[in-house]
Parts: sequence; structure tokens; C-alpha cells
Amino acid sequence: MSDSITAAMLAIGDELLSGRTKDKNIGYLADFLTLKGIDLKEVRIVSDDIGAIVEAVNALRSRYSYVFTSGGIGPTHDDITADAMAEAFSVSLPHDVRAMKLLGDHYASRNIEFTDARKRMARIPEGASLIENPVSIAPGFTIGNVHVMAGVPSIFQAMLDNVSPLLKTGVQIISRSIDSPYPEGTIGTRLAEIQKNHPETAIGSYPRYDGKVYSNQIVIRSRNEAAIEAAAGDVESMFQELAATS
Amino acid sequence: MSDSITAAMLAIGDELLSGRTKDKNIGYLADFLTLKGIDLKEVRIVSDDIGAIVEAVNALRSRYSYVFTSGGIGPTHDDITADAMAEAFSVSLPHDVRAMKLLGDHYASRNIEFTDARKRMARIPEGASLIENPVSIAPGFTIGNVHVMAGVPSIFQAMLDNVSPLLKTGVQIISRSIDSPYPEGTIGTRLAEIQKNHPETAIGSYPRYDGKVYSNQIVIRSRNEAAIEAAAGDVESMFQELAATS
Repeated sequence: MSDSITAAMLAIGDELLSGRTKDKNIGYLADFLTLKGIDLKEVRIVSDDIGAIVEAVNALRSRYSYVFTSGGIGPTHDDITADAMAEAFSVSLPHDVRAMKLLGDHYASRNIEFTDARKRMARIPEGASLIENPVSIAPGFTIGNVHVMAGVPSIFQAMLDNVSPLLKTGVQIISRSIDSPYPEGTIGTRLAEIQKNHPETAIGSYPRYDGKVYSNQIVIRSRNEAAIEAAAGDVESMFQELAATS
Repeated sequence: MSDSITAAMLAIGDELLSGRTKDKNIGYLADFLTLKGIDLKEVRIVSDDIGAIVEAVNALRSRYSYVFTSGGIGPTHDDITADAMAEAFSVSLPHDVRAMKLLGDHYASRNIEFTDARKRMARIPEGASLIENPVSIAPGFTIGNVHVMAGVPSIFQAMLDNVSPLLKTGVQIISRSIDSPYPEGTIGTRLAEIQKNHPETAIGSYPRYDGKVYSNQIVIRSRNEAAIEAAAGDVESMFQELAATS
């Protein structure tokens, strides 16, 4: 699975680490990127700490094609993602003219005061392009290969839709799931052989336990459908052999 | 909030990054650690790749009091967490006598063959202590400050219960949530002042959007209850002033 387009996610917020908020964006982004043929390789969650955010985004943006961040772009003092991005890219953080107009028009049309706090949301690192926010107007932004988006799931998702056309897409990874009639411990050694014989695939084995019954699913992933067919054939043959000998 | 006991989580598995599996362990661990007074500072999710796991666990274990890992300790070829931990700690990975007996007795009592694949689950890095697994017997292990646990949530949770008595506990962080009658943009500047005047607290502002209505919650966190009271008083006063002037 070489030559792939890769991505990382950086979720930002004390509330994710305290347990107050259960993240919903990681799984959503994972599904989204899989459909685009982009490999999500790593996720980090860090607190509302400038140093931690800067270190994480610099580590990730140098290593992967894209970085997607969530959280910390609102109007309050704990929203410091824009500050961290400006620091990571060593650029200034002015009140962006485009964002000031978007937000100014929005609040004017609703007779809402355009407070200093709301103006914080127009601070965009120099050189960044805006990501439109159809839900609550305050934009995200793209700087370099980093897409900075909101943490509220409905806004995160809407921003991701707007980023979507700009992303290079890879050859989509296809996956085939096969329910295993046998537990992992019975098939483990043979399955390792099958993996070795089908290097173009990534074969995973995923046990579940619902409190009463164990079940197990084999998932074969590849960008090459023929390779999946071949590996799946060997998995089915393994099951038939086991059925014949038990 | 100094002198705290800190922790990181490392969730391991391709299935978390492809979207196939939506992680449930991060939020669970976050709640668990908050109750123990341990600060979860960082989470990483990496794929089933030895190099990625080794790099992440080495980065995290040197930085935080504890690291908790989930996933990759089953019997199949894609379960490589034990290999990665042995490499990270530069120790060997023998079939552990204690684990072999636990598993051997378990399978013998159920007339299940103790296959080579199942014996993989007895490979424990040298010097590690075992974490009991009441659900499916195959143990986790603790090496240095790293607690290595299963990815299946019910087993992860049972193992965490067994690790719990061994953890140093900190002074518990208390939090107070106050529903804000005002949106973030209205209170942002004053809230930043309140945060500045109450440095012993961490004040967060958490907007929600349910598709129709925005709401906002102020959360004040601290290990010092009096500090929370004082900050909460200032937040309530702010709301009263705003009500009087609007």
C-alpha cells in the first residue's frame, strides 16, 4: 500500500482529556478519509496548551500529506488554536479582512454586537485561506498542509465538506469483511501464513465480546481488488479445511 | 494545577484509523483518571506498525507518570503490541511461565487446544508484571510505567480495574458547570478577565449546537474548591451585570 496520500488528525481540547466531552470527530474523519483513499496514519489529542499544540502540529505536518485539527477556534480565552498555528508557522496573526467582513456582516444583519471576543474569531494566520462555515459563519482556515476546523461536530463536518474538493484523493482502499466461525486462537497461525502470502493486503482479525458471546471478524484491506479476492479465497479455504478436520 | 500525576494513552490499531472501529476506551479512561485525580495530558492513536508504536510509547513514557495502551495483545499476526513494548524497553519477549500456566489451565479445562497462536498471548516482555484478565484470561502487563491492556472495551475496563489499586492517586480535580444564558461572543472578554483573576482554576467555555439552538456551558476546574467557588461567584456576577444592562 505504497504511494499513498497520508493524513493525521490533531484534536485539541481539555474537555476531551477530562472525559467531559466524548470525541465524535476522529471516527467521522476516519470514515471520510477512507472514502477519499487517504490513509489516516496517526491521531493525537492534546490539551489547550500552546506549547503542546505547536509541538504536535509541527511533528505531524512534516510527516503526513495533510493534518486536520478540531477545536479551539471560538471566541473565548481558551480558544488558542489560531495562536498556536501562527506560532508553528512563524507568521503573524492579524484580524483578517475577509473574516472581519464575513463576521461583521453576519452580526450586523442580526443586530448582534461585534464584540472584541467575536473579533477574536477573525484572527487568521497570515497567508492562510479561509474554510467556509455555513453553520455559524466563523471560518476555519488552511495554512500549508494543515486544515484548522471547529470542534463542534456539526461545524467540523460542514467545514470538512468545504475542504473536501481541495484534497488530493488516493486510490480508495477496499475492504472485505468475513465472519470467522473460529476463534482467533484456532486460526491465528494459518492466518499469519495467509498474510505472508498476500503482501499486497493488510489482514486484520477483530474479536468482539458482547458480555456473553465472542465473535470474530477477518477484515482484508487493499487498494487492489484482485489481491483481496485472492486472500479472501485463502481465508475461505482455511475455514473449509478446519470444518473438514473438526 | 502543579505537582500533578500525569498520564497518556496510546490506542493501537488500524481499525481505529480506518473508521471500522469507533474507539470507546479513550473516553472511558479519561473519566476513570479524572476520578483518580490523575491528569490525562495526551492521547495518541497509531496503526499496527512496530516502528510507530515504539516511537509513540517511548515519547510518552518519558514524559508522563503513566502510559495506558489499548489493543494489539491478541493471538493473531496483527497483534504486535508485546513485540513493540519489548523493543521499546530493549528486553526479550519470552513465553512467560506464569502466563503459560494461566492460559494452559484455562484451555485444558475447556478442552480447547493450546495452539501456537494462543501461546503468542503468553509472550510477555522480560521483567513485566501481569495484569489479570477476568474476561478472557489472556493477561495484559505492566512494564515500567506502561500499562498494556486489551482493545476490546469490556476487557480494557476489567484490566483497568485491576491496575487501579497500583496507581498513585492525585488530589481530585473538581469541576463546576454553569449554563451560560449568553453566547460565547458576548461573555468572551469578561470571561478572559475572570480566568486571569483566578489562576488556580482552568475555565473552559463549551458551545453546543444541536442543529437548531446554540447553548453554552462554562466549566471551572481546579483542585481547590475555594478557588472554584470564587471563580464561580465572579461568573454569576457577570451574568447578573449583563442581565441588568441588557
